[in-house]
Amino acid sequence: MTGSGAGPVVAVDVGGTSIKAGVLGASGRLSDVDRTATPAAGSDGAAVLDAVEAIVRRLAGGARPAAVGVVVPGIVDDATGVAVHAENLGWADVPLRDLLAKRLGCPVAVGHDVRAGGLAEHRAGALRGASDGVFLPVGTGIAAALILDGRVYAADGYAGEIGHVSVGHDLPCACGGRGCLEAIASAAAVARRYAAATGTTVAGSRDVADLVRRGDPAAVAVWDDALDALAYGLSMLTGLLAPSVVAIGGGLGESADLVLRPLAGRLAARLTFQRPPRIVAAELGDRAGCVGAGLLARELVA
Amino acid sequence: MTGSGAGPVVAVDVGGTSIKAGVLGASGRLSDVDRTATPAAGSDGAAVLDAVEAIVRRLAGGARPAAVGVVVPGIVDDATGVAVHAENLGWADVPLRDLLAKRLGCPVAVGHDVRAGGLAEHRAGALRGASDGVFLPVGTGIAAALILDGRVYAADGYAGEIGHVSVGHDLPCACGGRGCLEAIASAAAVARRYAAATGTTVAGSRDVADLVRRGDPAAVAVWDDALDALAYGLSMLTGLLAPSVVAIGGGLGESADLVLRPLAGRLAARLTFQRPPRIVAAELGDRAGCVGAGLLARELVA
Repeated sequence: MTGSGAGPVVAVDVGGTSIKAGVLGASGRLSDVDRTATPAAGSDGAAVLDAVEAIVRRLAGGARPAAVGVVVPGIVDDATGVAVHAENLGWADVPLRDLLAKRLGCPVAVGHDVRAGGLAEHRAGALRGASDGVFLPVGTGIAAALILDGRVYAADGYAGEIGHVSVGHDLPCACGGRGCLEAIASAAAVARRYAAATGTTVAGSRDVADLVRRGDPAAVAVWDDALDALAYGLSMLTGLLAPSVVAIGGGLGESADLVLRPLAGRLAARLTFQRPPRIVAAELGDRAGCVGAGLLARELVA
Repeated sequence: MTGSGAGPVVAVDVGGTSIKAGVLGASGRLSDVDRTATPAAGSDGAAVLDAVEAIVRRLAGGARPAAVGVVVPGIVDDATGVAVHAENLGWADVPLRDLLAKRLGCPVAVGHDVRAGGLAEHRAGALRGASDGVFLPVGTGIAAALILDGRVYAADGYAGEIGHVSVGHDLPCACGGRGCLEAIASAAAVARRYAAATGTTVAGSRDVADLVRRGDPAAVAVWDDALDALAYGLSMLTGLLAPSVVAIGGGLGESADLVLRPLAGRLAARLTFQRPPRIVAAELGDRAGCVGAGLLARELVA
């Protein structure tokens, strides 16, 4: 390995199913994203740490990285770099930043996947220029990144958990609660509920969207439920935070024609004097978290 | 009048029923609060402006004030000092700061009554030391002041309108919506719903609280509904913003023994992995807005 600062800045987004990673070029732009399957992990996170270390070493091409940014799901304390809780990865209080910095011998920034994605959308995507904006990926789960007065709001890692606020239905949620937005409106919930209603398995919410376009009544009913619940959730966001713009991402965001306008209409019907946000499609797709990880890493060497 | 800077700093809190005002002493502490009935007002706000001008002149004792802080309800743009919308005062787009500065010949700061109250509770009350805290006065209406990362969050005046987020009931609200938190859980709603259920008029929520303590079933039912709705509203706040502390004020806050612990319990029952806030009583009572107005004015002369 060469001396500190000689190598590249590496960005890593650890997801429940895949680890995405890339290298930041001199211009600050992220390279093509490299994808690896996420290993199953125990509560100490060792297997995932091994995988992240191997990916970073490979992308750094033998040089010691100048800095590494790693973003992960769950409850993450950005300030201390501790992964407090990540259901999908089996993590509890893993001091990710310190462990990785020791293994890699370079400065490491640790952040939250959705907040990092929100940061990326704010710097270089759909939230550009917004003082108050929300990045809302609707995928396997639902969480929001809150940009308030131009800064990402974290609340020690607990902010933005709109996926687990009740929207008044009675379905159980993986979190142990009932009525959660995520349980009826996530891309995964839409696919699952369509399969449960019809006995026909679908690969994901995109298949349900195709069925909605063809007028399939069961698909329309499931989609309507999801949009109504999302509008309810957005009415909470609007009443409390009044963002000027909400950028929808994730699997459901890929079917923008069936989401953006219907959602804006349903939200407007729920408001009286409040200021409705513009509802737009997120722009960075599933690279958002990785771009955000790169931004966090870049701050370490700026 | 004497020259600019010679006179006192005057703080004014314009409410729907009374105008509270006071003078800041050399130590920065507010004098005893002076109370005057709020005059009925047209959409240009002239009658209220006349009243505010007269009160300030009286409290300044003939001197030109060094600065004046005025806080008002409704939608207020703190940055421009415009009262965008105030249902109770009949105001629409009144350029309050500029009008008062011209009348009084001194710098004027205009703010929102609840956000100013939150600022005061943060500087000198129940939210002292909290990085992320919420001031939640539950009175005639319900609105929240959000202190996020140590700063008051305003969103151009639209933030904190938790009173008009649906908590899933079917009662109409003064805002024109249905299901609003305010329509079932404000101090006014509690008194109104008790009267409607029993045919017995009560002066306010404190009377209902007394009846709850004596086991009156109708009072208990109305109080339970209010607490359930407040817990629902707080679960939204907790999921989205994860404040470390929520300070309950207003009329309902005066019955702290029947509010704080029951509310914490009901909120906990609605959460799974989220971080519950401490729920405490606000400390500044109905002086909070006026103290906040004084803080805003003081910033003009600091």
